[in-house]
Amino acid sequence: MIKAGIIGSTGYAGQEIVRILLGHKDVEICWYGSRSYADQAYADIFGNMFELVPDICKGEDLEKLCDQVDVVFTATPQGLCSSLVSEEILSKVKIIDLSADFRIKDAAVYEDWYGLHHPSPQFIEEAVYGLCEINRDAIKKARLVANPGCYPTCSFFSIYPLARAGVIDMKSIIIDAKSGTSGAGRGAKVQNLYCEVNENIKAYGVAGHRHTPEIEEQLSYASGQETLIIFTPHLVPMNRGILVTAYADLKGSYSEEELRQFYIDAYKDESFVRVLKSGVNPETRWVEGSNYTDVNVRLEKRTGRVIMMGAMDNLVKGAAGQAVQNMNLMFGLEETEGLMMPPMFP
Amino acid sequence: MIKAGIIGSTGYAGQEIVRILLGHKDVEICWYGSRSYADQAYADIFGNMFELVPDICKGEDLEKLCDQVDVVFTATPQGLCSSLVSEEILSKVKIIDLSADFRIKDAAVYEDWYGLHHPSPQFIEEAVYGLCEINRDAIKKARLVANPGCYPTCSFFSIYPLARAGVIDMKSIIIDAKSGTSGAGRGAKVQNLYCEVNENIKAYGVAGHRHTPEIEEQLSYASGQETLIIFTPHLVPMNRGILVTAYADLKGSYSEEELRQFYIDAYKDESFVRVLKSGVNPETRWVEGSNYTDVNVRLEKRTGRVIMMGAMDNLVKGAAGQAVQNMNLMFGLEETEGLMMPPMFP
Amino acid sequence: MIKAGIIGSTGYAGQEIVRILLGHKDVEICWYGSRSYADQAYADIFGNMFELVPDICKGEDLEKLCDQVDVVFTATPQGLCSSLVSEEILSKVKIIDLSADFRIKDAAVYEDWYGLHHPSPQFIEEAVYGLCEINRDAIKKARLVANPGCYPTCSFFSIYPLARAGVIDMKSIIIDAKSGTSGAGRGAKVQNLYCEVNENIKAYGVAGHRHTPEIEEQLSYASGQETLIIFTPHLVPMNRGILVTAYADLKGSYSEEELRQFYIDAYKDESFVRVLKSGVNPETRWVEGSNYTDVNVRLEKRTGRVIMMGAMDNLVKGAAGQAVQNMNLMFGLEETEGLMMPPMFP
Amino acid sequence: MIKAGIIGSTGYAGQEIVRILLGHKDVEICWYGSRSYADQAYADIFGNMFELVPDICKGEDLEKLCDQVDVVFTATPQGLCSSLVSEEILSKVKIIDLSADFRIKDAAVYEDWYGLHHPSPQFIEEAVYGLCEINRDAIKKARLVANPGCYPTCSFFSIYPLARAGVIDMKSIIIDAKSGTSGAGRGAKVQNLYCEVNENIKAYGVAGHRHTPEIEEQLSYASGQETLIIFTPHLVPMNRGILVTAYADLKGSYSEEELRQFYIDAYKDESFVRVLKSGVNPETRWVEGSNYTDVNVRLEKRTGRVIMMGAMDNLVKGAAGQAVQNMNLMFGLEETEGLMMPPMFP
Repeated sequence: MIKAGIIGSTGYAGQEIVRILLGHKDVEICWYGSRSYADQAYADIFGNMFELVPDICKGEDLEKLCDQVDVVFTATPQGLCSSLVSEEILSKVKIIDLSADFRIKDAAVYEDWYGLHHPSPQFIEEAVYGLCEINRDAIKKARLVANPGCYPTCSFFSIYPLARAGVIDMKSIIIDAKSGTSGAGRGAKVQNLYCEVNENIKAYGVAGHRHTPEIEEQLSYASGQETLIIFTPHLVPMNRGILVTAYADLKGSYSEEELRQFYIDAYKDESFVRVLKSGVNPETRWVEGSNYTDVNVRLEKRTGRVIMMGAMDNLVKGAAGQAVQNMNLMFGLEETEGLMMPPMFP
Repeated sequence: MIKAGIIGSTGYAGQEIVRILLGHKDVEICWYGSRSYADQAYADIFGNMFELVPDICKGEDLEKLCDQVDVVFTATPQGLCSSLVSEEILSKVKIIDLSADFRIKDAAVYEDWYGLHHPSPQFIEEAVYGLCEINRDAIKKARLVANPGCYPTCSFFSIYPLARAGVIDMKSIIIDAKSGTSGAGRGAKVQNLYCEVNENIKAYGVAGHRHTPEIEEQLSYASGQETLIIFTPHLVPMNRGILVTAYADLKGSYSEEELRQFYIDAYKDESFVRVLKSGVNPETRWVEGSNYTDVNVRLEKRTGRVIMMGAMDNLVKGAAGQAVQNMNLMFGLEETEGLMMPPMFP
Repeated sequence: MIKAGIIGSTGYAGQEIVRILLGHKDVEICWYGSRSYADQAYADIFGNMFELVPDICKGEDLEKLCDQVDVVFTATPQGLCSSLVSEEILSKVKIIDLSADFRIKDAAVYEDWYGLHHPSPQFIEEAVYGLCEINRDAIKKARLVANPGCYPTCSFFSIYPLARAGVIDMKSIIIDAKSGTSGAGRGAKVQNLYCEVNENIKAYGVAGHRHTPEIEEQLSYASGQETLIIFTPHLVPMNRGILVTAYADLKGSYSEEELRQFYIDAYKDESFVRVLKSGVNPETRWVEGSNYTDVNVRLEKRTGRVIMMGAMDNLVKGAAGQAVQNMNLMFGLEETEGLMMPPMFP
Repeated sequence: MIKAGIIGSTGYAGQEIVRILLGHKDVEICWYGSRSYADQAYADIFGNMFELVPDICKGEDLEKLCDQVDVVFTATPQGLCSSLVSEEILSKVKIIDLSADFRIKDAAVYEDWYGLHHPSPQFIEEAVYGLCEINRDAIKKARLVANPGCYPTCSFFSIYPLARAGVIDMKSIIIDAKSGTSGAGRGAKVQNLYCEVNENIKAYGVAGHRHTPEIEEQLSYASGQETLIIFTPHLVPMNRGILVTAYADLKGSYSEEELRQFYIDAYKDESFVRVLKSGVNPETRWVEGSNYTDVNVRLEKRTGRVIMMGAMDNLVKGAAGQAVQNMNLMFGLEETEGLMMPPMFP
């Protein structure tokens, strides 16, 4: 039985790790970390866990925690994992960091976009970007995994097959993304109150959202080309889900079916990426609660551009599910273990 | 491996049976029945099932179906199961009927409230009311189970402990219930359009909802007293969930803790009924996606009345989950098999 | 032109006063008071007011304010108006207080239910309870009006005709109320975040909500009887609207039409209370954005009880609209001036 | 007093015309036309109009109607207005058609994108495209106005200033639009049921939505250039509102403030287009219920592209409000008459 600890277990992503691990036959959670709710019963904060989780929340003491568990999930704001991690800690436990601290290989880029000093750049090189479908072998051997961001994951899967095939201009990509509100976290902010979000849609982080360099970096690896994108996220009045609608210029002439074949080829061995039937657009309702990303591509003949689309549950494949998928790989388990829950509708 | 067929698999309750059975290790679904979508791919109707369910919908031919499966779920409008069932069919398969056809022991009461002729009253006596927590032993031996209604299930669990204890006046009960919109079904009706339901709350079926006699009958069994209720359901702008707020006159003087103890005693051996901590009110978000019903009771000292509350997912414990729980009992499986999914939040 | 000041103009009710007064031909707003946003542009906080309100928010200085305006609306938490009001202030301006400070005639009851010391009980006697339909003449002469609570207003209109007619047992009343989330205010609290409220319904303040004594007091005036109620509010995932479903024992035998006639008689001269057609239930969507309260009554023959229902926009007739209606009366204007906006649907 | 008739008064746009005209001091509605609800009381269909509209719905008899009124609004599906209109009718009444029948100057393009035969192409030339801010003078003299589509209106206002200034490549434009569900109409379709739309976002009409040629035509007039766009609409779980996020390549080098100045210049005399402060993104909540369109522009320096944004209430400026604005112009009234209602929030 793998022993797991969660730092930041009382955020939405942290709680989703709990939900998933409760159904995972090889893991038990030994540490529910929370700065805000230390010493409170976990089930008093998340009533869904009543009678399922009897534990009391503990503080965020990574030193102590790493003596008790095999794997630590840090589902915390940027800066926490990178300030706590050390060689000694990594010698004891595997770490799956859900923050952005170790996602970007160039510390200067991280510091620029996040406005933070990176306290432990020496671990960036070692950290593996935890996109299982791409970095599977490296993840199996990793001590420290940087779990990808929700927008980057969905954007990447939407665009990857054409980037890899070299058929789109990597400087022409526009990603117009839409997210449910759980992506905004559980902090008490006026802008996230029910009456502020309900019956509204807005763009935010326009021309400067922090997920931009992460997406560009991964797409440049996939394409072997310098990549420059516009990324515009929007807040949608729903709890879960991310939808990506991405546009790019084609570099040659292809039929829609040829384009779709790149998707089929890219994902034919993947359990969690579904290439939809021809002409079917991804919708977030069809992936809710599951680890799937649904993707598809359309050709806009009149302009010679492509429309690449993806839908994902931001808390599952965009956060907790992907983290557990990484854990499965790191511990030699079946990659899909504990993650085969069908999407829940409605 | 138990072979299952679903008649009415393309309604919300039918689809939820599919979702649950996909995670049930002892069952395979062999027949996806649908009048509206016969000959169409199931996953074309419910995109969440893409790559999970390759089957094509078949018609509602119970005769043919019962030669191929061990159990049939009828998730159809009232009148269908009762018009199809026969001694020959029951000799071949077990039937779990999610309609009201066999819930009410007095056919005249059924015909009066539902405005339908009952075509097979000879099976009413045999049919077992499928409230597992109450009729567990009879269900284990049943060929035909009448799966309880969603409102009756949640109302019953909210009131049962005090009804059984004999401490409330069984003619004073008022049940004010609130349901998510999936309870209204998947038919194309103007009144259930997004813009009609969203940003609205209304009562419906006031002073005459068809679930009234079912609730009264079960509470009269529990209390041994004639029971007369007012039942007022409301439509709430959310997908899933039922909340019951019920009121009754106390027949004697009790403290809130004494009242709560009746709940603890009634449900201490039950896996799917959670008696919340003192002072905590049930909320539908904490049970969504799960087979739990959360209950609690409050004493209103000034008036000498009690407020009994329950929350449930109408599609799970109120329909599909309870149906699978019945199936487990009927086939000698662990009662909780395939039903231990934690509630999903948010 | 009447000059108005608003203390608490950046809450939901305060902002709704602004919206209504912008369409009122006899009033101009001279003071946008706000403790939280002092010195910020009003339209930076409420983007709907961009180019409509050029003003900067000012502090909550009632002393200074009362030299500049004719009427002050205090849309603030309990305790503020009562701590600021004085004989000198009342000699200069008329005050319409949207808090509970002057609604309850017995200061001890106020202090008990609100857990606050009342700093100016000497004004309670003078203050007029601002239910225009009931206290019209007194309001016309008032210096200080206590604007009724949202739940009390909707509850009162739902029950008043039968209370006044003396046909219901005033100790048997149960009020099960449902409110949109704007009623919870604009404070940054985790419990009011989008993901906490959406897809959920819950009761709160069970067996002890602070609006209870206010409702009881007004119904006792209407009936001439001591009144004892159970009041249970629920939080509904929608922005606006209150629905009341109230139950009571009839003291005699009446037909539904006789009962409905009491409603028609009670409201025949009222502009803002609509008695719906026989058998039609109030719905919050039909009053949204307007000053109407829709009411109706149903007889539950089997139990000899009545079901009294009302729907209202909590921010309009439940707060800002009623406040402006009071202002109209206090200044000798047409009672409906600025308030005849039709409900907005969907 | 102008006498108005509405054909299609029981759709969402038709009902919004009613709401607006009820507050218009110079107009009375004489004919509530409805094919689906003929002979039913209007207020039985839209409960918000109870006691406000006593009328009974009439059929869609344009011949008879044009003898009784001065202006007819046709808020009907495509094909109806064009099949009914005649020289005789136009000699009697002014027509404001909310369908697409007369929006596109090339009948062949209309027939191609809408898949309909155009029965009266002889009136296309005469019909004026009812974008008041652009065609004000022509509208004043028009007998037949083609009221613009909701998406085209919001898209146009978002892009127009840069198109007119000639600073963007008119073949590079990508419009990613998001709409509330009232835009899908009031027909009883499974895909628009509450549970299908709620908690979901999806693209639809990808690479082929019928509003594409209308947007292209208007932008080509504005820019004097052939225009080719990608237009991708999305369905958002909210009642009202359209948000446009549009992208284009800049043809030269401009600062964000220079770009924003084009917007200020273009709209400086307009009552209903608000250019937001620098850096503020449009949000649908700030325009709900009003005739405003909020716009702004951002420069994405890294890629040399612009992000143009607009928010609008699809039922007001996107349909009924714009229709009334057209009517005001056609009858020599103040353009803003009856349209100055502030946006309603929340």
